[in-house]
Amino acid sequence: MKQHQSSQPIGIFDSGIGGLTVANAILDALPNESIIYFGDTAHLPYGDKSGDAIRYYCLKIVKFLLEKNCKMIVIACNSASSAAYQVLLDFFKEEALFVNVVDPLVQDVAKQNFKEVGVIATKATISTNIYKRKLEELQPNVVVDQLATPLLAPMIEEGFVANNISKAVLENYLSHPDLKNIDALLLACTHYPLIRSAIDDFYQHKIKVYDSTVVVAEEVKRLLLANQLLNTGTEPRHHFYVSDYTDSFEQTTQVFFGKSIHLEYEPIWQ
Amino acid sequence: MKQHQSSQPIGIFDSGIGGLTVANAILDALPNESIIYFGDTAHLPYGDKSGDAIRYYCLKIVKFLLEKNCKMIVIACNSASSAAYQVLLDFFKEEALFVNVVDPLVQDVAKQNFKEVGVIATKATISTNIYKRKLEELQPNVVVDQLATPLLAPMIEEGFVANNISKAVLENYLSHPDLKNIDALLLACTHYPLIRSAIDDFYQHKIKVYDSTVVVAEEVKRLLLANQLLNTGTEPRHHFYVSDYTDSFEQTTQVFFGKSIHLEYEPIWQ
Repeated sequence: MKQHQSSQPIGIFDSGIGGLTVANAILDALPNESIIYFGDTAHLPYGDKSGDAIRYYCLKIVKFLLEKNCKMIVIACNSASSAAYQVLLDFFKEEALFVNVVDPLVQDVAKQNFKEVGVIATKATISTNIYKRKLEELQPNVVVDQLATPLLAPMIEEGFVANNISKAVLENYLSHPDLKNIDALLLACTHYPLIRSAIDDFYQHKIKVYDSTVVVAEEVKRLLLANQLLNTGTEPRHHFYVSDYTDSFEQTTQVFFGKSIHLEYEPIWQ
Repeated sequence: MKQHQSSQPIGIFDSGIGGLTVANAILDALPNESIIYFGDTAHLPYGDKSGDAIRYYCLKIVKFLLEKNCKMIVIACNSASSAAYQVLLDFFKEEALFVNVVDPLVQDVAKQNFKEVGVIATKATISTNIYKRKLEELQPNVVVDQLATPLLAPMIEEGFVANNISKAVLENYLSHPDLKNIDALLLACTHYPLIRSAIDDFYQHKIKVYDSTVVVAEEVKRLLLANQLLNTGTEPRHHFYVSDYTDSFEQTTQVFFGKSIHLEYEPIWQ
């Protein structure tokens, strides 16, 4: 692989601002790293788009992040990780390290040896069967029940995370017969950590609920260490780019990142 | 304006499939017309996008529809009508007749002389203030209360139109203090006719609820008649194009159009 310096930034991208939950976890674990975040707000959400469209968007975004000199690319979106991880490796694996949000979570969950695991995600992620395939590879006896839950992401973006609406929507999805006997649930969308406690409430903490934020941050750390690319500098610099700008996006970043962010408009599609 | 034949098709477009409610109303009123529908599913929904992005998308879509020989263009999307109608006229008014979904509704409502009118729509539509400005122009004493209701369109696409979730979401939005004293409500998004009866239930039919489907169909008929372009042929042919194809889009068309449709993939963005 191309030689990199530890001072180079980590590139992180998502269809919009949901991936900021992952960026946040990475900076919590690695406060010295600089990040370049790209939210493809011109195409958000990816969850309703076709695999081919998502692959094309991701190729162009990663090209942009590599031109910004990133040492590592984190695909902070389940729909993008499911549809585009392989093609990104095919194109760019010599250029940078790659981390997706699916594998670290699947590896972590497979170790627990659950009998029946539920997966909730966007239509795009579910349609690839990626969690089912990967989990069954590592743990052939597991039963995996997948459910597309397309209203959750827009609901969270609207700020409905702990009211009667989020409760009714979650009840509707989580009481689906397919999920009846699960002993663990994977939140396979980077928006969903924001409704984790509502989901725990629904299950009254009787089943284990997993999201990928912390395990992805750990994988990022492990890979950087293994490649001697951990940043030891003390002046991290961050940039947050979006392909379409509205005030509403900037306001919503607070919800996902925990603090307010200045978004820079970068029209890579024009 | 360029000379047209009455046998030429009507072009109708939307960010996705919501505009099929308008296409349906037009074909109900004018069963001899041929239509060419374009759903920009690669960019759906427009409701979260910026005005500039929407204007660019619309210019390219209308260019495509004009190349398909349309005599008239119907902008079957409130976000697009709000952001892009003027620029479409600037570019193409000599090429075809144009109908948006805002003006026919505003003109109809202004005649009723309501005291206070509520408008619910996407963020993109509300941010333009178009309904407020246009209604106040025709009826200066009217009070217009606008509310962005971004969860309604994805909720309707998910098929939640008459259950406890649609009820909770509608109650949350419609009990907003700004809408407290309205005597009419405008459904300023082409998805919303599908929850009209739930909205009527919320208000127990005590206020008037308007959507643009029928008035837009009437305006289309009036304009075609005035320009001697009403199709008297008996073999209408329809095409439904989308800029991104998934099975899920094709399944959802049934909800908006009342019957199933074959979608043709037309990647105008590649």
